[in-house]
Amino acid sequence: MRSNRHTASPLSTTFVSVSNMVRLIQRKGLSTCLVGVADRIEQEFLRWEAFDKSARIACHSADGVVELMPIADDQQFSFKYVNGHPKNHRFGLPTVMAFGLLADVETGAPRFLSELTLTTAIRTAAMSALAAKKLARPNSRSMALIGNGAQSEFQALAFRDIVGIRELRLFDVDPAASAKLAANLQGQGLEITLCTSTAEAVKGVDIITTVTADKTNATIITPEMVEPGMHINGVGGDCPGKTELHRGVLEMGAVFCEFEPQSRIEGDMQQMPADFPVTEFWEVLAGRKAGRVSAEQVTVFDSVGFALEDFAALCFMRDAAAEFGIGEQIELVPNNPDPKNLFGLLGSQRAQLKRAA
Amino acid sequence: MRSNRHTASPLSTTFVSVSNMVRLIQRKGLSTCLVGVADRIEQEFLRWEAFDKSARIACHSADGVVELMPIADDQQFSFKYVNGHPKNHRFGLPTVMAFGLLADVETGAPRFLSELTLTTAIRTAAMSALAAKKLARPNSRSMALIGNGAQSEFQALAFRDIVGIRELRLFDVDPAASAKLAANLQGQGLEITLCTSTAEAVKGVDIITTVTADKTNATIITPEMVEPGMHINGVGGDCPGKTELHRGVLEMGAVFCEFEPQSRIEGDMQQMPADFPVTEFWEVLAGRKAGRVSAEQVTVFDSVGFALEDFAALCFMRDAAAEFGIGEQIELVPNNPDPKNLFGLLGSQRAQLKRAA
Repeated sequence: MRSNRHTASPLSTTFVSVSNMVRLIQRKGLSTCLVGVADRIEQEFLRWEAFDKSARIACHSADGVVELMPIADDQQFSFKYVNGHPKNHRFGLPTVMAFGLLADVETGAPRFLSELTLTTAIRTAAMSALAAKKLARPNSRSMALIGNGAQSEFQALAFRDIVGIRELRLFDVDPAASAKLAANLQGQGLEITLCTSTAEAVKGVDIITTVTADKTNATIITPEMVEPGMHINGVGGDCPGKTELHRGVLEMGAVFCEFEPQSRIEGDMQQMPADFPVTEFWEVLAGRKAGRVSAEQVTVFDSVGFALEDFAALCFMRDAAAEFGIGEQIELVPNNPDPKNLFGLLGSQRAQLKRAA
Repeated sequence: MRSNRHTASPLSTTFVSVSNMVRLIQRKGLSTCLVGVADRIEQEFLRWEAFDKSARIACHSADGVVELMPIADDQQFSFKYVNGHPKNHRFGLPTVMAFGLLADVETGAPRFLSELTLTTAIRTAAMSALAAKKLARPNSRSMALIGNGAQSEFQALAFRDIVGIRELRLFDVDPAASAKLAANLQGQGLEITLCTSTAEAVKGVDIITTVTADKTNATIITPEMVEPGMHINGVGGDCPGKTELHRGVLEMGAVFCEFEPQSRIEGDMQQMPADFPVTEFWEVLAGRKAGRVSAEQVTVFDSVGFALEDFAALCFMRDAAAEFGIGEQIELVPNNPDPKNLFGLLGSQRAQLKRAA
């Protein structure tokens, strides 16, 4: 925590705290961040086969989950720490909190440590909007947003800026959440309708986004709500025992996911047999597989969040932090003049001479 | 990075940098830390079945490995980030660098972020000495230390303070490493002999400790070097393709490990068939399985380093940091007055109104 410079010794690690991330997003503009992260995700997804991928490691407990999400190419390793605790509001804590790291693969040196709570909301929305841009009908203008919690503003703005959504229909079991979302979106160029049920909200829209938080097998969207040609962006069904879509919805059209081995365990797809057909989205981006094939087809993006999205977001934020000179240098690992003499770090005070009682 | 207090808001995270860890170890005394961490490891190993355990996640590259090592009980989740890059000295970087975290399982809130490079050296040495205290012959007094790099001083002092070793015989392929180790151990109450080969160093000792760094299938110890009753503490063979002991050495006596599923992949045991007998050390501590059964038996502790040791070390260091008021508060996750309104964090400047070009 010594200086504000970004490149110093070979072992400096830049740390971006929450306050500094707020400054960074304010300086750059949230829309620029959403669009920029979506662009970076697209770039990295097009390099899909260059990455060493694994399903995340999840530690489940009664009230939530803590996860580590690692990924690497031959240059950089990244991981994200993230929790999901739907009942955290009773402690005044966010449902989702996250931070993450970029390190050099060649040496293992940690280079960039950052808050990722705000950044996860940005990358999740950017991923959703990028998928919808490729999978929803062209000229989609209206979206139902089911679940109006901490991530909903980011979804709304990403769909405005990346997909061209202009009309939003909101529903949440907690009307105060919808009121908060509507208030936060005032003056953002979006026509907003508050609805009293999911069925009312989804009627006639181009895109349905579900981003609810309950850790349960919920059935937010049922087949009779889904009209021909709709695109469904299922964000909240993202761990074992946590789903949002009726299995009949998945059977109505084409289903796309991020990383199949993870999505089959964590996504709404966990309800389906192991041979249920699904397409990894990167193959659509790369032109190797079909996306939407007709205006009447129902498309489903069964999003669970994948480490490569965090890798992309960390790279974007690292570059933005360097651009604005935002961040602190922290001493996470030793900047040791003689790396073979770790013990020498303790030497000056000879405190190691003290013996245990 | 606001205050030096340890308990503040529900979302504060204490950060202990390398410099602060040096202060902490100097204040507490290295021996007290070695003995205290060994005690904590013993306590936690006796609660073995209370932990959600998994083999670490490793990302291998040409010159090294980056690993994440998670573990949790019903109260606390911990993970360590650690690399192993034997050629890092060419960049002036340590071979091993690490940091780690303790978080609340109930909420996912990150509570304690710490350097773990120094701490890993302490916990590895504490684990080795704890195992030797239970598995080596009682009244063991002499140890060969093969590999005199960054971890060797910690091994020497842990064996002095926990096992009662008074005589050390050193060998390293790099004589400068042995000279550094001997110099660092001056005045520490250890009788030191510099040797010119592994065979010379191990002749007649009670315990052999191997802590070499090459990422290769080396054969540091061969069967003809091993005398009846010796205890072998194999520390450096700790990932696939990295071994130190000839397979014949493992066949000479009883082999003990930390966490069997991990050790069969990473330990010297990777050379052995899947049914090769091994005992998890916690079962010896708990009195459920035999340790050494005779003065003539050869015992081998095939150590690879397990997440529970880091959990124990993090708990010890967290308590010590609190005791001395060492550490900084960092804003790793939002301390948000309205956790459902993450977007509100960005609100004051209305910067999010900016639209992407």
